[in-house]
Amino acid sequence: MRFFSDNAAAAHPAVIEAIAASNRLDTAYDGDEWSRRLDGAFSDLFERQVRALWVTTGTAANCLALAALCPPHGAIICHKDAHIENDEAGAPGFYASGAKLMLVEGPGAKVTPEAVEAAVGRVRKDVHQVQPKALSITNASEYGLAYSAAEVGALGDLARARGLGFHMDGARFANAIVSTGESPADVTWRAGVDALSFGFVKNGGLNAEALILFRTELADEIAIRRKRAGHLLSKGRMLAAQMLAMLDNELWLDNARAANAAARSIATAAGERLVYPVEANEIFVRVTAEEAAALRAQGFDFYDWGPGQIRLVTSWDQAGEPIERLAAAIASL
Amino acid sequence: MRFFSDNAAAAHPAVIEAIAASNRLDTAYDGDEWSRRLDGAFSDLFERQVRALWVTTGTAANCLALAALCPPHGAIICHKDAHIENDEAGAPGFYASGAKLMLVEGPGAKVTPEAVEAAVGRVRKDVHQVQPKALSITNASEYGLAYSAAEVGALGDLARARGLGFHMDGARFANAIVSTGESPADVTWRAGVDALSFGFVKNGGLNAEALILFRTELADEIAIRRKRAGHLLSKGRMLAAQMLAMLDNELWLDNARAANAAARSIATAAGERLVYPVEANEIFVRVTAEEAAALRAQGFDFYDWGPGQIRLVTSWDQAGEPIERLAAAIASL
Amino acid sequence: MRFFSDNAAAAHPAVIEAIAASNRLDTAYDGDEWSRRLDGAFSDLFERQVRALWVTTGTAANCLALAALCPPHGAIICHKDAHIENDEAGAPGFYASGAKLMLVEGPGAKVTPEAVEAAVGRVRKDVHQVQPKALSITNASEYGLAYSAAEVGALGDLARARGLGFHMDGARFANAIVSTGESPADVTWRAGVDALSFGFVKNGGLNAEALILFRTELADEIAIRRKRAGHLLSKGRMLAAQMLAMLDNELWLDNARAANAAARSIATAAGERLVYPVEANEIFVRVTAEEAAALRAQGFDFYDWGPGQIRLVTSWDQAGEPIERLAAAIASL
Amino acid sequence: MRFFSDNAAAAHPAVIEAIAASNRLDTAYDGDEWSRRLDGAFSDLFERQVRALWVTTGTAANCLALAALCPPHGAIICHKDAHIENDEAGAPGFYASGAKLMLVEGPGAKVTPEAVEAAVGRVRKDVHQVQPKALSITNASEYGLAYSAAEVGALGDLARARGLGFHMDGARFANAIVSTGESPADVTWRAGVDALSFGFVKNGGLNAEALILFRTELADEIAIRRKRAGHLLSKGRMLAAQMLAMLDNELWLDNARAANAAARSIATAAGERLVYPVEANEIFVRVTAEEAAALRAQGFDFYDWGPGQIRLVTSWDQAGEPIERLAAAIASL
Repeated sequence: MRFFSDNAAAAHPAVIEAIAASNRLDTAYDGDEWSRRLDGAFSDLFERQVRALWVTTGTAANCLALAALCPPHGAIICHKDAHIENDEAGAPGFYASGAKLMLVEGPGAKVTPEAVEAAVGRVRKDVHQVQPKALSITNASEYGLAYSAAEVGALGDLARARGLGFHMDGARFANAIVSTGESPADVTWRAGVDALSFGFVKNGGLNAEALILFRTELADEIAIRRKRAGHLLSKGRMLAAQMLAMLDNELWLDNARAANAAARSIATAAGERLVYPVEANEIFVRVTAEEAAALRAQGFDFYDWGPGQIRLVTSWDQAGEPIERLAAAIASL
Repeated sequence: MRFFSDNAAAAHPAVIEAIAASNRLDTAYDGDEWSRRLDGAFSDLFERQVRALWVTTGTAANCLALAALCPPHGAIICHKDAHIENDEAGAPGFYASGAKLMLVEGPGAKVTPEAVEAAVGRVRKDVHQVQPKALSITNASEYGLAYSAAEVGALGDLARARGLGFHMDGARFANAIVSTGESPADVTWRAGVDALSFGFVKNGGLNAEALILFRTELADEIAIRRKRAGHLLSKGRMLAAQMLAMLDNELWLDNARAANAAARSIATAAGERLVYPVEANEIFVRVTAEEAAALRAQGFDFYDWGPGQIRLVTSWDQAGEPIERLAAAIASL
Repeated sequence: MRFFSDNAAAAHPAVIEAIAASNRLDTAYDGDEWSRRLDGAFSDLFERQVRALWVTTGTAANCLALAALCPPHGAIICHKDAHIENDEAGAPGFYASGAKLMLVEGPGAKVTPEAVEAAVGRVRKDVHQVQPKALSITNASEYGLAYSAAEVGALGDLARARGLGFHMDGARFANAIVSTGESPADVTWRAGVDALSFGFVKNGGLNAEALILFRTELADEIAIRRKRAGHLLSKGRMLAAQMLAMLDNELWLDNARAANAAARSIATAAGERLVYPVEANEIFVRVTAEEAAALRAQGFDFYDWGPGQIRLVTSWDQAGEPIERLAAAIASL
Repeated sequence: MRFFSDNAAAAHPAVIEAIAASNRLDTAYDGDEWSRRLDGAFSDLFERQVRALWVTTGTAANCLALAALCPPHGAIICHKDAHIENDEAGAPGFYASGAKLMLVEGPGAKVTPEAVEAAVGRVRKDVHQVQPKALSITNASEYGLAYSAAEVGALGDLARARGLGFHMDGARFANAIVSTGESPADVTWRAGVDALSFGFVKNGGLNAEALILFRTELADEIAIRRKRAGHLLSKGRMLAAQMLAMLDNELWLDNARAANAAARSIATAAGERLVYPVEANEIFVRVTAEEAAALRAQGFDFYDWGPGQIRLVTSWDQAGEPIERLAAAIASL
């Protein structure tokens, strides 16, 4: 029973079926029927005109967006626990030709306006110091917290005032959306977000992520950068078809609701042991080394997360007995 | 009836089945059962120890290899018609941090030792001129010609003598192998090749290409670069499973044989109109604008390729009547 | 008697005096009295508002300009014999984050509108091919030819029509100006040039080159890039003082007139042996290996320049007897 | 009376004289008589064979070294207050093709083995996290503290054990050397340093810094990178001559002694107000805003350095009355 990460889960059967259904001769790259439907499908979802590009990884989506929002000599403000800082092998520096990350702190890996303001304020306005040019937040955060539309909006106002491009890493965007109940539009462009990495792989997709551009004028340049980075697949219809299957009948929301519900069950069992409120599908629990070993002995797999803490991540396909057993095991520690 | 490019064809049913069969929870990235079998499977095929990494595009395979073989301040010698020069949006310069391509000419997009020697000889050995550090050839070439093992070996000897890393872009490696009948080992590492982009997507794969490293010591660094470029997919098992399905029972050779046979049928019909000998699955035919229009009027789609020429590319799944009709149409021009 | 290159000559005494005179405590970097006078001095010379930044090499001036005019995924059209292609160790690719040079041919290393038009025309307008974004010419050219204002203007019109930034490498700008007699303004911004590398080092300067920006809005970003490239010297007053000394009393024009006059004397002696008309301070002469040896035996040093040709370059401080002797030696071959 | 920074001071007269004396025709770039003497001169100073390259800024020296010691996908460990982090406009990321800085803390901007060990220990050994590949320290530190040979040696041992290249930013190397009285050899290569940026500009030089390579095998590649970065000046003799003049008769040590002595005088006056011990030529003093204003009213110029602190920097040419007046003014606060 694996709770390492949602990115290792199986893809939803509808996704595999969509891939099979799109397996025919069509125009290469993104000229096929499915890829050409993406802008429309996501524009409907976001209640405004957007441009949507498929890629195969969140790292590619994040860094293509950041390279468009930040010049080589600029800095991207992000949380010190952000995925782009810790788990992308320096990809932002690669894609953005040497741009740097400017790290801020904040509880639960969430970025606050105060932290951004302080980071901007520390920089002298001269040619010797790298000037901040973009802001990137992760929603849900690396510690499973969701941003409200109001929180994003406060950051968006600040980004605009300080001339920062605003990117949201939504590897678990679905989990955040079902957590707050706010609309995709309210949490993103209405709150000032310029570009969103809209994750599917952790939510039942196989290998497709969407880069959603609310500043649509960035799309053509990013399409060039996507090719230049080797991310323009020949048979892109397979990626587009996945996403359309996920959007269809709100499968993406159903999947996220299932993962979040599983996480809540475990969270309830963990009670006072929780390190953070559980707002998405990640649960951080305080356990001793002996307790962790005891859980593992019962067949539960998960990562240690610093001394005295473990991380559990639930997936769209985890429900019923395994979750009940894990909840019971934690409750009985 | 589309003859634009083999990269737009459907994937072979066995590939889709393999993807579906690998769709289960497993270790993420390349820690899964299928990915861990790749080194062994390709080592068997190449009759020596190799390292094999999956990626989703030929551009990624090519440029990851080139960045490992050429420093930022070096040059990569390639044909002026090479894919890396003309169709990868400058990806070699991106991946190799500004390294440049040093172009040579040669009939049929093939590189000759004389051309390489001349290119090397033109460069002063000082800090003002970019020094050649790698050689890249395409096999089969962009004009559908296959290199013999002896031809590759002559280039390999030269590469070693001049201190050049040696890369082969094998987007149509299968077509070349069935064309010459020589072994994969003889055409690559025994002939001095350090790294091979082994294509599957144009040959019945869906989205998986292999980067084969004969200099196995390069693999760990390239694995880092792959992640840094956003090419380490979460559910890599889907990519590995594709390749294993293609290697199984020599499906990759069967597919290439089918495409090559189709091309030969058309070539026979084209006769004197052929611009190049047809050694793989690409046919370049001299036609007038009126003749091209006539072919299109009969339902055949293809690209113009310079004035008075068209390019036809056959795929693994093109045989029988459509090919016979195209052959007949060309013969009757 | 060295005729290798004007970049090895001594600096003019007035330049050394200016350095000594500026050797006092002042604001660091470019905040000093001399640096702050540059914009005004060059604006007077060019008859319009310009921004002027000092750097220490032509390579830095060229590549800072090109990186501002061409995105990482774009191409810079230049002559195949251009300094940026042949003698800057790939610096354009480094500064412009992997941008490539798109080479054209043309007599005497001059770029023609036809060549540019053809180069632009060869590029498909898609994401697979690198799109041209800038044009760079060298005036005087690498073969010592000067562009007329009309010639530059024709290129400028084309650059504007095709959306290309327009850069002039003026390592020997002074020699070109005194050659045609046209005004600096007419040959540059009035003809559509966006940025000029204005050389002093080959013309009696010690180590200061000016980057002149007619598109003044580029200056602030380039100033950042200059720092980032390690080209913002602490005691920049030494560089600014050199330039001001060169502009004072038109010393830069006097020096160029002297070098050009010396070149003309030699050219007259060479007569039919000239490979190109001598319009600046470079002379390319057809000689046999024996004749070259004979000249060297008489104490003249110079470079061979391909089979059967030599290159002679005159400097601001070469006049009188050495030039007469060289002219006589060539005449008597 | 300016105490902003030593990099704004005048150059020593002997340096200006050396420039004037080298102003003659000679081989261009670094082929001249003076440049060819550098390896020998610095090898004598460091008691072993070294390679020495001139550049014009500390940023160039630092980043050329770091790019040779750290691959694009690696990290350079340095202090959060290091010059390369705060005052070089992101040049390390530019030169090292996107490599990142990994920041550590420590009193007085000094790096400790414990801090390095902790930083290394925090990194998972996988492809997702950027692996540390180099260590860079500043001696004297940004807060004017000198490393003992033993301190450097402890870091050198750790660097070797962890596979880190080891760079020392010696913008104020002379001030550190005269402070500890230890030999240049003991403080650098005998303690494990691979490359040293040996500063002259802050110590009476005009525009020349030396990059000293104890790992001499790095020099040829760095020479290429220097050209590629536009840092190979045509008349390099002017730079080499400066350094030789500084090394002659130990002028570099005399200058540093003078600056350090001036700093000590001020430090004695500051007494309990000192933020750090004064071991070189920088003095950090606790003053109220009113006291700072009072000092400025008496004609002393300096930077505020965070709330309640000011920074004073002395130069080689500051002695006698101005120093006495400043000391008295501080003592009487």
